[in-house]
Amino acid sequence: MLRKLIIICFCLVSGLVSGQKILPIFSPNQQLTLQVNRSLDGRLTYQVYYKSKEIVGLSSLGFVLKKPAVSLQNFTLLGVDTSSHNSVWAPVYGEEREIRNQYKELIVHGQSAEIRVDFIFRVFNDGIGFRYQFPEQTGFQHFIIDEELTQFQMTGDHNAFWIPGDYDTNEYTYQKTHLSEIDATKAAAAEKDIALTALIGPHAVQSPLMMKSAEGIYINIHEAALINYPVMHLGLSGLTFTSLLTPDAVGNKAYLQTPFSTPWRTILISDRAEDILASRLILNLNAPTALTDVSWIKPQKFMGMWWEMHIGKANWPLAGGKHGANTANVKRYIDFAAKHGFDGVLVEGWNKGWEDWFGNWKEDVFDFVSPYPDYNIDSLSAYARAKGLRLIMHHETSGAVTNYERRMADAYQYMVDKGINTVKTGYVGRIIPRGEHHDSQWMVNHYARVAEKAAAYKLMVDSHESAHPTGLHRTYPNWMASEAARGSEFNNAPTLGIIPEHTTILPFTRLLGGPMDYTPGLFHMSLNQFDASRTTRVRSTLAKQLALYVTIYSPLQMAADLPENYEGHLDAFQFIKDVAVDWDEKRVIAAEPGEFVTIARKARGRSDWFIGSITDENAREMTVSLNFLDPGARYEAVIYRDADTADFEKNPEAYVITKSIVTRNSKLSFRLQRGGGCAVSLKKL
Amino acid sequence: MLRKLIIICFCLVSGLVSGQKILPIFSPNQQLTLQVNRSLDGRLTYQVYYKSKEIVGLSSLGFVLKKPAVSLQNFTLLGVDTSSHNSVWAPVYGEEREIRNQYKELIVHGQSAEIRVDFIFRVFNDGIGFRYQFPEQTGFQHFIIDEELTQFQMTGDHNAFWIPGDYDTNEYTYQKTHLSEIDATKAAAAEKDIALTALIGPHAVQSPLMMKSAEGIYINIHEAALINYPVMHLGLSGLTFTSLLTPDAVGNKAYLQTPFSTPWRTILISDRAEDILASRLILNLNAPTALTDVSWIKPQKFMGMWWEMHIGKANWPLAGGKHGANTANVKRYIDFAAKHGFDGVLVEGWNKGWEDWFGNWKEDVFDFVSPYPDYNIDSLSAYARAKGLRLIMHHETSGAVTNYERRMADAYQYMVDKGINTVKTGYVGRIIPRGEHHDSQWMVNHYARVAEKAAAYKLMVDSHESAHPTGLHRTYPNWMASEAARGSEFNNAPTLGIIPEHTTILPFTRLLGGPMDYTPGLFHMSLNQFDASRTTRVRSTLAKQLALYVTIYSPLQMAADLPENYEGHLDAFQFIKDVAVDWDEKRVIAAEPGEFVTIARKARGRSDWFIGSITDENAREMTVSLNFLDPGARYEAVIYRDADTADFEKNPEAYVITKSIVTRNSKLSFRLQRGGGCAVSLKKL
Repeated sequence: MLRKLIIICFCLVSGLVSGQKILPIFSPNQQLTLQVNRSLDGRLTYQVYYKSKEIVGLSSLGFVLKKPAVSLQNFTLLGVDTSSHNSVWAPVYGEEREIRNQYKELIVHGQSAEIRVDFIFRVFNDGIGFRYQFPEQTGFQHFIIDEELTQFQMTGDHNAFWIPGDYDTNEYTYQKTHLSEIDATKAAAAEKDIALTALIGPHAVQSPLMMKSAEGIYINIHEAALINYPVMHLGLSGLTFTSLLTPDAVGNKAYLQTPFSTPWRTILISDRAEDILASRLILNLNAPTALTDVSWIKPQKFMGMWWEMHIGKANWPLAGGKHGANTANVKRYIDFAAKHGFDGVLVEGWNKGWEDWFGNWKEDVFDFVSPYPDYNIDSLSAYARAKGLRLIMHHETSGAVTNYERRMADAYQYMVDKGINTVKTGYVGRIIPRGEHHDSQWMVNHYARVAEKAAAYKLMVDSHESAHPTGLHRTYPNWMASEAARGSEFNNAPTLGIIPEHTTILPFTRLLGGPMDYTPGLFHMSLNQFDASRTTRVRSTLAKQLALYVTIYSPLQMAADLPENYEGHLDAFQFIKDVAVDWDEKRVIAAEPGEFVTIARKARGRSDWFIGSITDENAREMTVSLNFLDPGARYEAVIYRDADTADFEKNPEAYVITKSIVTRNSKLSFRLQRGGGCAVSLKKL
Repeated sequence: MLRKLIIICFCLVSGLVSGQKILPIFSPNQQLTLQVNRSLDGRLTYQVYYKSKEIVGLSSLGFVLKKPAVSLQNFTLLGVDTSSHNSVWAPVYGEEREIRNQYKELIVHGQSAEIRVDFIFRVFNDGIGFRYQFPEQTGFQHFIIDEELTQFQMTGDHNAFWIPGDYDTNEYTYQKTHLSEIDATKAAAAEKDIALTALIGPHAVQSPLMMKSAEGIYINIHEAALINYPVMHLGLSGLTFTSLLTPDAVGNKAYLQTPFSTPWRTILISDRAEDILASRLILNLNAPTALTDVSWIKPQKFMGMWWEMHIGKANWPLAGGKHGANTANVKRYIDFAAKHGFDGVLVEGWNKGWEDWFGNWKEDVFDFVSPYPDYNIDSLSAYARAKGLRLIMHHETSGAVTNYERRMADAYQYMVDKGINTVKTGYVGRIIPRGEHHDSQWMVNHYARVAEKAAAYKLMVDSHESAHPTGLHRTYPNWMASEAARGSEFNNAPTLGIIPEHTTILPFTRLLGGPMDYTPGLFHMSLNQFDASRTTRVRSTLAKQLALYVTIYSPLQMAADLPENYEGHLDAFQFIKDVAVDWDEKRVIAAEPGEFVTIARKARGRSDWFIGSITDENAREMTVSLNFLDPGARYEAVIYRDADTADFEKNPEAYVITKSIVTRNSKLSFRLQRGGGCAVSLKKL
């Protein structure tokens, strides 16, 4: 089939292509084929084949511009360039010490309406990426995007793991349906727990979009290097997705100036689900950091004054008599966190403004430098540092981003003055500038501005309610993690909560874009101890909560529960203390979206390995071959597993800890109970 | 008539009014009467009488709110309060040393849709002001204004001096028509010289709106103390104007929180045109400044690297070979300005970015801290200060206000570091946040933020392309002047330019709101000496240019022309050198909108007086009695008048300077030629 394709190609004439099919490009391992075509009227399309099977059918490329008001759909071809690339690079921190970047590249130089556009395709072993590039050119400099016309034509009615397309939130529960059954309006209607939504319509979904064909091929659509451009959502018509860019206040999509390159549109393809989780394609398509000194960027494990507000023990505002962030209470967290070797303590509700912060599109809410009078930030910061850790700052913008941008410099200097070097940002609420969305170009630029400004003060950033990640932690390594999905906080949401399969889908969707501050580590599964009105509970076993520290990669990992909830389970808590947050190596042992994920990771610069294994609402047996361990070495394995009676609904906190000595020839077998998991630490002896 | 009105009033019951008419309120001089009424269905209206004649007919009051979605039109009356006020206050700088603030006040406490609204009316001798106040109350805190329903029902088809209602510009040429003839669309279509417009519609005009009734009564509608609220435009239907608030990006008008008071709606009324110009009503309705140290705020006279760019001798960008703001050229300005006793030299085009600054809704244009390499700001600033003056900074935002707000702190610190204490701001272009307008609430708040932030750095502000002034220079005395109208720069506009009557209308319209940086002082009337493509010329005589320094009040007055153009007329230039920029006293000698204005002013802290007299395109004789001079004192009068052959079209630069000795018994008579004027300095001997 592939051979035939090449044969029917028109010849490539140096500098000018007049034929219909442009020479196909094969992945380095020859399993993927990219075919770019030009119709007689100049329409450019691409196709992708995997092991000779068409995975992406004839899919259009192009734009409609608002200014100049032209359509870029019919292209003259000015030429093509091809090249190969193979290199290895080392991330500042990450899942691996070294990352291989190997691809074949095709650049198609096109012209439409007298505007030159280059189409850059990269074919990797595990997928493709392509972007549009508007080179510097005479007579065309500033332009406004009305629509991007990129299509992704699926060739079957795949099973899909999707959330509703929404310009303001990515915190939905994932749906699992065939493409033909996608009804985002219905799914969104069932969602009661998200404060602010801007649903696009019944047939729009978000990326990363995970699919599985009837033949068992895994396909994932996303984007990489989202810079100075709005978030791409995906509108489905028939079996074809089309790019839906997030509009700004006046309906425009992006204000651009040549030279400009769009984000990459990415398609991961494999017949092994594990390959999807192992892919480095998105990271490879992001630019290296421009920072020369990254010595101040440190992966961290932290606790926080946070969950006790969610569950009703305390509250953010000073008023009301339940202010959590008071000096004594935060000191209690510092004591516990220091005793157990944590790096930081997050404090939410520390600053004035929480009495009137949400729901009114109010601009001047917080000033980020005014602590409540019962919170002695100076003494607490000094106390924490004397104990070897630091406070973590919280900047809730309440969506009033103009206000935050005005105050960022002062707020960051305040952090420096207080000896605080990490900030958790939040964007809960309607965005100001009014009419902008969390996903619009202006906000995408804002998140990057935060990363850049924070870097100038040597501050690390953990953003919540921000746009979906696209691998930008390579370019902005101090922007270490985002929430940008339904995180563990939803365990306390009034209605749906976090269903067990959620964490088995996240690695195939949200996590492909970058580290997530999911905030695992809940040990107390019934939440109504402080607020009888709350009937939800954590839908997870305790052992699964431990396993999440391995299945969810983040260089900022929180132990989210309260000190008193850990005190009763210090044996299990030991895993959280031991687990690494920076890694040399990653092995995806077994994975199936919506069902199970088992991952092993080697701690960076150490010989220790950690394994996390999780399941959905179904119990299942799991066997892990330890063939990744060093030859000849012996390891002490500590296995934190669900008790035989454990069940996320009936008996979530029942776990068993066993120890054994293992080698690379060993196999570990364990049972994941319903909604359960298993965590293993392997310490080289 | 007035007596009868009182008689038909229902009685005022303490705390609750159930009748239809609320006790009328009379101005201190008894000439004005305010009548507030409540219809049977609860509609509140007001009427204004002047010397027993109804000037404002039954006019509605109220709001439609977007959130909560209620209409505030039918009011229950909870009570009324009345009081009198009479005091004197001293402005930091101004047209008078002391200002009397005398009025009768009526507060009507109303309630609609369970929301309490207070209507505050103040009746002065020369007009009324009223505002809405939303007091702090249970169950109503945050709200969004959809429409303000304030009406101004005129009682005749008056002659009106108006410009088209426009959310983004107030730089139109004034139209002079009857109310029934207002066609803003047609007027705007004739305007070719404004870069950005957002016309409201055929029957919307801007305030200050000047009118004259058939009986010769002068009526002016405007607003005072425009804070945290959008600019009010005026929509005409029949003879009734209704408030048209400027919308934001999503169509809302204002986001508010109790306690809140709207700006004052003002109506000046007199049968003497001179009273309109003498009115202090708008200033009295503004709040005193909160600044305690105002010692750093200094009225100034300045020259600038500016007009030579407008007329094509030089240009703003470095590229193109005509960069005006180069060190040698600015030094030439400093030398000339220092020699002639000026306080400052404005430098436009000093900073990087002018090569690509306008027309593309581009956000990151200027950084406000990067001088072009041929402009040595350090040496020039030191040079200027050694000569007793200072550079004046220029911050053109190009409408990218988010960018400016991000950089304001650095930009102001940069000014402080460079020894510069005055900044001219500019807002040429479409506003970012996109969808906001120059006149929307967010921008109104921005201008105030600039004033406040600048005050923190002890900087004085001169804003161009900002919203119409409303007396805020009382509250923010460092926000010394605005352009905010068609200024002298339009003398170089390709088509209409500045017609002679324009400057006789400005005092009755734009100037009622506050000082204008009109930039008078053009001596060279044909502009095509540097650019043959330009066919416009200054439509003024040279003597009129001098008179503008008195007829247009501003504590920041520019001598706008080039040094070389003053060199040839140093005898006339002497008036610009002599004229004050801060005053003890103002006498409006004679005025008629669209025809002529003659004003005498006494320099602050000195015995000298200055007179400015200007006319439209018609020549006319003017006689000024000098009875304001000190008894028994002799003054040297220097009279700068149009030559007998002067004519703004045929012989604009012909002037005559005469000297004489005068006393308070003297009368000065002179002829204003077509488009001409006369300036007089009176120095006490």
